[in-house]
Amino acid sequence: MSTTQYREGAKLAIVGAGAVGSSLAYAALIRGVARRVVLYDVNGPKVRAEALDLAHGGQFLPEAVIEGSDDVAITRGSDVVVVTAGAKQKPGQTRMDLAGSTVALMQKVIPPLVEHSPDATFIMVTNPVDVTTQAALKISGLPSNRLFGSGTVLDSSRLRQLIATTCDVAVGNVHAYVCGEHGDTETPLWSTATIGGVPLTEWERTTGRLGQAERDAIAHRVVNAAYEVIEGKGATNYAIGLAATRIIESVLRDERRVLPVSRMLAGWHGISGVCMAVPTVVGRDGAGTQLELPVSDDELAQLRASAEHIRAMSEGLGF
Amino acid sequence: MSTTQYREGAKLAIVGAGAVGSSLAYAALIRGVARRVVLYDVNGPKVRAEALDLAHGGQFLPEAVIEGSDDVAITRGSDVVVVTAGAKQKPGQTRMDLAGSTVALMQKVIPPLVEHSPDATFIMVTNPVDVTTQAALKISGLPSNRLFGSGTVLDSSRLRQLIATTCDVAVGNVHAYVCGEHGDTETPLWSTATIGGVPLTEWERTTGRLGQAERDAIAHRVVNAAYEVIEGKGATNYAIGLAATRIIESVLRDERRVLPVSRMLAGWHGISGVCMAVPTVVGRDGAGTQLELPVSDDELAQLRASAEHIRAMSEGLGF
Amino acid sequence: MSTTQYREGAKLAIVGAGAVGSSLAYAALIRGVARRVVLYDVNGPKVRAEALDLAHGGQFLPEAVIEGSDDVAITRGSDVVVVTAGAKQKPGQTRMDLAGSTVALMQKVIPPLVEHSPDATFIMVTNPVDVTTQAALKISGLPSNRLFGSGTVLDSSRLRQLIATTCDVAVGNVHAYVCGEHGDTETPLWSTATIGGVPLTEWERTTGRLGQAERDAIAHRVVNAAYEVIEGKGATNYAIGLAATRIIESVLRDERRVLPVSRMLAGWHGISGVCMAVPTVVGRDGAGTQLELPVSDDELAQLRASAEHIRAMSEGLGF
Amino acid sequence: MSTTQYREGAKLAIVGAGAVGSSLAYAALIRGVARRVVLYDVNGPKVRAEALDLAHGGQFLPEAVIEGSDDVAITRGSDVVVVTAGAKQKPGQTRMDLAGSTVALMQKVIPPLVEHSPDATFIMVTNPVDVTTQAALKISGLPSNRLFGSGTVLDSSRLRQLIATTCDVAVGNVHAYVCGEHGDTETPLWSTATIGGVPLTEWERTTGRLGQAERDAIAHRVVNAAYEVIEGKGATNYAIGLAATRIIESVLRDERRVLPVSRMLAGWHGISGVCMAVPTVVGRDGAGTQLELPVSDDELAQLRASAEHIRAMSEGLGF
Repeated sequence: MSTTQYREGAKLAIVGAGAVGSSLAYAALIRGVARRVVLYDVNGPKVRAEALDLAHGGQFLPEAVIEGSDDVAITRGSDVVVVTAGAKQKPGQTRMDLAGSTVALMQKVIPPLVEHSPDATFIMVTNPVDVTTQAALKISGLPSNRLFGSGTVLDSSRLRQLIATTCDVAVGNVHAYVCGEHGDTETPLWSTATIGGVPLTEWERTTGRLGQAERDAIAHRVVNAAYEVIEGKGATNYAIGLAATRIIESVLRDERRVLPVSRMLAGWHGISGVCMAVPTVVGRDGAGTQLELPVSDDELAQLRASAEHIRAMSEGLGF
Repeated sequence: MSTTQYREGAKLAIVGAGAVGSSLAYAALIRGVARRVVLYDVNGPKVRAEALDLAHGGQFLPEAVIEGSDDVAITRGSDVVVVTAGAKQKPGQTRMDLAGSTVALMQKVIPPLVEHSPDATFIMVTNPVDVTTQAALKISGLPSNRLFGSGTVLDSSRLRQLIATTCDVAVGNVHAYVCGEHGDTETPLWSTATIGGVPLTEWERTTGRLGQAERDAIAHRVVNAAYEVIEGKGATNYAIGLAATRIIESVLRDERRVLPVSRMLAGWHGISGVCMAVPTVVGRDGAGTQLELPVSDDELAQLRASAEHIRAMSEGLGF
Repeated sequence: MSTTQYREGAKLAIVGAGAVGSSLAYAALIRGVARRVVLYDVNGPKVRAEALDLAHGGQFLPEAVIEGSDDVAITRGSDVVVVTAGAKQKPGQTRMDLAGSTVALMQKVIPPLVEHSPDATFIMVTNPVDVTTQAALKISGLPSNRLFGSGTVLDSSRLRQLIATTCDVAVGNVHAYVCGEHGDTETPLWSTATIGGVPLTEWERTTGRLGQAERDAIAHRVVNAAYEVIEGKGATNYAIGLAATRIIESVLRDERRVLPVSRMLAGWHGISGVCMAVPTVVGRDGAGTQLELPVSDDELAQLRASAEHIRAMSEGLGF
Repeated sequence: MSTTQYREGAKLAIVGAGAVGSSLAYAALIRGVARRVVLYDVNGPKVRAEALDLAHGGQFLPEAVIEGSDDVAITRGSDVVVVTAGAKQKPGQTRMDLAGSTVALMQKVIPPLVEHSPDATFIMVTNPVDVTTQAALKISGLPSNRLFGSGTVLDSSRLRQLIATTCDVAVGNVHAYVCGEHGDTETPLWSTATIGGVPLTEWERTTGRLGQAERDAIAHRVVNAAYEVIEGKGATNYAIGLAATRIIESVLRDERRVLPVSRMLAGWHGISGVCMAVPTVVGRDGAGTQLELPVSDDELAQLRASAEHIRAMSEGLGF
């Protein structure tokens, strides 16, 4: 019976127990997102150790069961499956080669996950996220709302954080999206960005901050933020863990939040047939309505270029 | 020493232990807003009983001390003082008569509160909130950032809730303000209202919802929401308790949130010298920057009328 | 499908929109206990106004749907049903007469609630809670784990709060139960009460506080706490709202917390066939294992007297 | 002025930006423990990258400022300083050699930290935590309540988690301490361990679980838990991050929680002059009252041996 199922609470499966997967599990447990959290990774000793380390903090967490295994059966009956596993870059390998290895990995990983959780919503975090999402969607055979990627939820958070600091307001009051590819061609949408109802393009008039040069500098930092972090610590894991947790919450609690997730587009400003981040209503049905916010001519041109970049890359990999 | 003071935690004083004051205390305690919460009311048995009832739930709350007294000295050294106490309406009394009684009450209540907490930020919740704020500001002798009213924070929440339900998205993604008087002349600012970057005035085009007629119906419900609630239960207390808690949090945690509080205007779209709600950055310095969001000609006309209404009422009461 | 059901989130029905029911709804919404909260009361305008006032605070709450109605159908398919509705005391009516009216009310109220939510867990809050629970359990025809009362969860919180204040430690570290009737015959179980592993009966030795006289004074205040609050404000609602919220959380999240709920006893220290509060593991199956903590001879004598008092009262009412 | 200081919020400094320090920062930020969190580490690029990665998640966190630097001045004016930095184990180095390197590191690290935050409470997390705490206390010249170690807060959480799983109750209802050295000589105090008032030594009688053999197996797993995790993932960081966050909360919010922190003993069951974990009331004054919970003869013998082990090791290092 459904009622009994409910009372056992939501089950969240995290695939990949590396820095991203385990940080994401940590954030999700602290925020009490799910009643059961399982980690699945091919490295058995590692995944069991991560689960154990997390479980040891149980006294300080909302009640939850946490388990780790190298057997995919542990994911059975999940409500949400998040994929963070990727191929490791080999010396001399190009980004396209790496993308190829990752997509090949998805062909092994995705089918058994879908088999064990046919009703789950799937969230892809593995990079390059748009291409990986596009491939995984096809591999899975799922309807497009049920599998989507973390897209530019993190990039938008980075943009908002920088704007908030510059303008000295709460980050929660900065409304601004980065859309397009989660990568070098991504586009901050300044034309619709606002704080407290004030368009950011007019912010300079009142406060003398956030003029064109400052906006350009912020955009540059957002696009290069990942490189900046990776140079210092070798990876990014904390912010992406929080971004993914927010997406998971929106699905499990059916919050219907607007999030720029990477989803199969169908006529968004004329773009179709490619997985790319645009503002999307995310709830229990996964990626719902795609919001067609107004964009400037320049922004649209960049977004179209971003779409073509993803499309070319996907086609190059056979998807 | 300041460090020692900090560690004792923030002190919140709530003046008036009626339905609004005690519901506000309940919400503030559940959310862990302050380490010490004191209730002050002229009715000693009532205020002690409310504090006791709240304290009895201590096991289920973040650690806090809660006390109630009919001696104003209990408010000494507060970081934030919230005023919810008002005059009771007598049979046959007009709204203007009632406002007069309330302002007369402030002349008794405000000076000892300021004396006991000279460094506090004061938040007025008592209705009619704009007129009461204007009078209390003058009575207190405080700089205008340090005393302001709850304004249309609640009305904006009502507007957002109705829009969210209509459009089936999270209320957290609806960005829309009601500004002006907290009362019959208040103005929903549709021209800057957005969801996920999409202007609400264009929402109809994509979704078929939220056309002019539906927006008018929503605006009508917002303005009349208080009457609707009062008719059924005799008062409003829960939503205003939450709205006030949000304002308090923004001050105590220096969040710098944008909130439409009632504050002394200085050249906002040409309006000055009157306390009225406009989007304001609220932080440890109280009511900071007033954000001059763009408004349509109609909206500006209504806001000016609202300002004149408050000004006339204040002058009629000698403030 | 069960998964779909889950994603719609838990549904909580609160029966009775008086001070207790609406405060409970407020606390439950602030803590994000359920995705849907419905209020049901015979007074239509009142229950709709309470729901509206709560819904107006939506911007400041975890995402939830809140509705009120005088039609019992609104409770359909709830996961938890909390009953706070009771008979009103008439002038000259004895407590036994009042209990009779309340039990008569249950005969009307319980069957349609069970019919609309046959799989729900039922939590009785209406006083006298033990007798009402015993009657409602029989009326409902439910297995005894699926219907129980709030018992002395609140009384135990009051005891812990007073001990914490006296000993200057966090209330969360005071482990002490009040058991038996939620009423005049209730018994604080000092013999098993501890702080940080130190028996409270030995606390005096180390700290000079909490000697026999002080313990007696605390016990007296706990038993009379409700009278103290009612004298000042006419009712108790905030602490009971929090206590009930904690019980609901334990059921909906299957937390398996130990709570002194009023449940049908089966051989607890030799007591059977009566609903009375003893430490119980509360989870998705409702009231589970009854924990037989050691009790002193005096405590056992008092608990048996308490059981006989409830039994006599129940039998007097025909249950 | 103290009030102004308060409103700027609490400042938390974390020394060491390795896996423990950065996980701790992540947990503290998600839980909203402090308004300002600074990371300090000698590796500049690493510490700035960790702070940046954390800051990028700002949109999903309670409002906070996060910064990282290799300049100790960034810690100036902190309310709490947590030390996670330690010496790296070199090939062939014994545990005693490693402890010597760590203590030598403290002689460089502690004095400038105390100079920059003379009023802070210091929490040592670096292992071997008892010896490091004892050395750091002497180096710092602080009163003993103001510098203490994380002790067996984590070990106690591990013990409680295993008991909770075995007995199928909420971990929050398991009251059990591991005391003594955070290491091989640590002692689970079964004689005072309880669930819902039931002594765990009597749990077997009612439920058939948790007999002597099962208790021994649990104790063995607790003592070896760190080895188990380190073998699989090379370090422990998540649970210790949560344990430290709980201690920090208790100080910053003056919660007065009972926590088994490693603190200078003064006549605890006759043990003095050594830093070792016993249940302690932790609040704004740091490590307060040491609770002398009853212990069995066996437990006392083990605790004394643990104390002598720490004493010998400290003396061997000159403290």
